[in-house]
Amino acid sequence: MTETDAAPDTPPDAHAQEHAHHGYISNQDNYLKRLRRIEGQARGLQGMVSDEKYCIDILTQISAMTSALQSVALGLLDDHLNHCVRDAVASGGAEAEAKLLEASAAIARLVRS
Amino acid sequence: MTETDAAPDTPPDAHAQEHAHHGYISNQDNYLKRLRRIEGQARGLQGMVSDEKYCIDILTQISAMTSALQSVALGLLDDHLNHCVRDAVASGGAEAEAKLLEASAAIARLVRS
Amino acid sequence: MTETDAAPDTPPDAHAQEHAHHGYISNQDNYLKRLRRIEGQARGLQGMVSDEKYCIDILTQISAMTSALQSVALGLLDDHLNHCVRDAVASGGAEAEAKLLEASAAIARLVRS
Amino acid sequence: MTETDAAPDTPPDAHAQEHAHHGYISNQDNYLKRLRRIEGQARGLQGMVSDEKYCIDILTQISAMTSALQSVALGLLDDHLNHCVRDAVASGGAEAEAKLLEASAAIARLVRS
Repeated sequence: MTETDAAPDTPPDAHAQEHAHHGYISNQDNYLKRLRRIEGQARGLQGMVSDEKYCIDILTQISAMTSALQSVALGLLDDHLNHCVRDAVASGGAEAEAKLLEASAAIARLVRS
Repeated sequence: MTETDAAPDTPPDAHAQEHAHHGYISNQDNYLKRLRRIEGQARGLQGMVSDEKYCIDILTQISAMTSALQSVALGLLDDHLNHCVRDAVASGGAEAEAKLLEASAAIARLVRS
Repeated sequence: MTETDAAPDTPPDAHAQEHAHHGYISNQDNYLKRLRRIEGQARGLQGMVSDEKYCIDILTQISAMTSALQSVALGLLDDHLNHCVRDAVASGGAEAEAKLLEASAAIARLVRS
Repeated sequence: MTETDAAPDTPPDAHAQEHAHHGYISNQDNYLKRLRRIEGQARGLQGMVSDEKYCIDILTQISAMTSALQSVALGLLDDHLNHCVRDAVASGGAEAEAKLLEASAAIARLVRS
């Protein structure tokens, strides 16, 4: 898609800006790499169960995978607070309120899961 | 492999027994199914990051995936206590000691991860 | 200290405002009530151990106490985001950066503890 | 109650033995010491809230207290597996089944709290 087709009332960087609000664009490759490794761990666990590996070794792998997932979650939350929530708060109003409530609920889910 | 070749001092069901000790043989398909779903969740998360979906929605998915993983871990631990640890304790001796120590360490890793 | 001595360039409500930044002033009594109950649970656990109550019952009490503590932590974090972090972000600058980093670190400690 | 009244068919050490099954008798003082420290942390938190200390410092204290509680829980669970569950498994039968189920449920509560 070329930006030259953009309607005059649409700023050319509107799309990029919207993306920037989601905050993780700069680290996207890093997140994808970590999630691919986590996907590999899930596949590895299936191999261990198929081969009837020792339970404790499987549990060790699950603990490692859970930590890797938690670490991705904390990174995303960090990005979210630093971009999305921050921008909403800087703009103020009901949007700020809503973003903060939503972030608190996500944090509670992470702490309790 | 035919059991007829088994040396006289090896009980014919030694291999089956060893597997039985790992405890999850009866639920193996169920564990594989759950782990395949978890692998699918890891792949889904990559799609969400690639498409720059909303952070909070990604975090919700990660919480669900973490709970699914924890549930698999608790199931495996349960099987392990009911088979491997139980058999070792019934036999007694140093093996029982070792299995209980190992199980405690695995539980601590799960609680802390 | 009486507020009547306040220099003209210090708004009389500066102290109250600083407190308000800590965010939990309105719920202080509620937090104190919950923490007193948690203290009571810690004392109850000592009684259970002294009386050599059944381990599983003690563990159930510890799980309840941990959940109560987590809930206080999530409430305080919520207040902190809605007041301290929000005000810092609205003011902008290095303070906003510092508050967000600090909040992220506290969230990571909660998720991992 | 004096042990001299014990019926002849009740071994005089039955009560002590039952206690020994609860497993933590040797470490009782250590557990009591740790729980008193946890109680002190709960009291300290009330002081911090009353004095309107900085939220993040309170959260750091709560994380430390949660870890201390978890550590007590893991110790008690360890003792429970090594005494109560072990004895029940060595005796076999329905009691072994029941103790293992109960231990699994307690572990699940710890992992999820």
